[in-house]
Amino acid sequence: MDDKVKKTVLRLFTYGLYAITARHGDEVSAMTSNWLTQSSFTPPMLMLAVETDSYSRRIIEASGAFAVNVYESSQRQLAGQLGMTYAKHPDKLDGLAWRPGSATGSPILEAALGWVECRIAGSLPSGDHIVFVAEVVDASLHREGTPLTLKEAGFKYSG
Amino acid sequence: MDDKVKKTVLRLFTYGLYAITARHGDEVSAMTSNWLTQSSFTPPMLMLAVETDSYSRRIIEASGAFAVNVYESSQRQLAGQLGMTYAKHPDKLDGLAWRPGSATGSPILEAALGWVECRIAGSLPSGDHIVFVAEVVDASLHREGTPLTLKEAGFKYSG
Repeated sequence: MDDKVKKTVLRLFTYGLYAITARHGDEVSAMTSNWLTQSSFTPPMLMLAVETDSYSRRIIEASGAFAVNVYESSQRQLAGQLGMTYAKHPDKLDGLAWRPGSATGSPILEAALGWVECRIAGSLPSGDHIVFVAEVVDASLHREGTPLTLKEAGFKYSG
Repeated sequence: MDDKVKKTVLRLFTYGLYAITARHGDEVSAMTSNWLTQSSFTPPMLMLAVETDSYSRRIIEASGAFAVNVYESSQRQLAGQLGMTYAKHPDKLDGLAWRPGSATGSPILEAALGWVECRIAGSLPSGDHIVFVAEVVDASLHREGTPLTLKEAGFKYSG
């Protein structure tokens, strides 16, 4: 397999951009993610791939839950900010307005278009990431708007 | 949770559209799918959710492999055709040009922009779907072009 060709084809895949948040006690995580889709209608479920060695993975696993906050088209800068590693930018959440979700306690970002809260139902290793399958247990829309895509943001998390 | 709100928020998610193909002996399956993203860089892996009761699920599991064929922006009609159920349209592949991929034998559609062949590494139940995690073992680009999205096609497989 030609590595360059493989990268080119995988970069044809279409992605949205989301802030994945979780909370365990006093610890709060937030990361920008595009490796996420729905994975069941009944019950409503999602699948999400998270970097194995990441801070977010630890908090998501410890809490058994996470929230998906949908970025709006205009929020490229926020997506970039929350996409920075927690290790290098432990203060990346400073000044960001959020409240704990009523179902799981996961942070709900006021800035997002809308959000869903999810409870983890299973996980599976996937190379340098771990795949979580999770049930949607609450959802709300903050306002109408156009969601941000990976293509529009110009980010390259695929390939 | 308000079912209508949940549906509205889940429909904010962004999706591409792909033909997922598999082959087991003389049996060939092809379906249009949008619940698919990359799930690892090293090794390159994907995650894909497939309807539990579908013909495609049976062929994918029997062969232990599948191919992802990326639709081009102009191929809404083809995506609709391959999106029909095999049970009602057993002839939906008639007249479609394909060859078996050299790594897994999965059908490679000539019409697609590009494709990857994948070998299944694990699976996890997810409500009315099953999640497959699979390693990319071959890839090629047929031509340059813009990929088809769920939004452009106007399909509604989410919510």
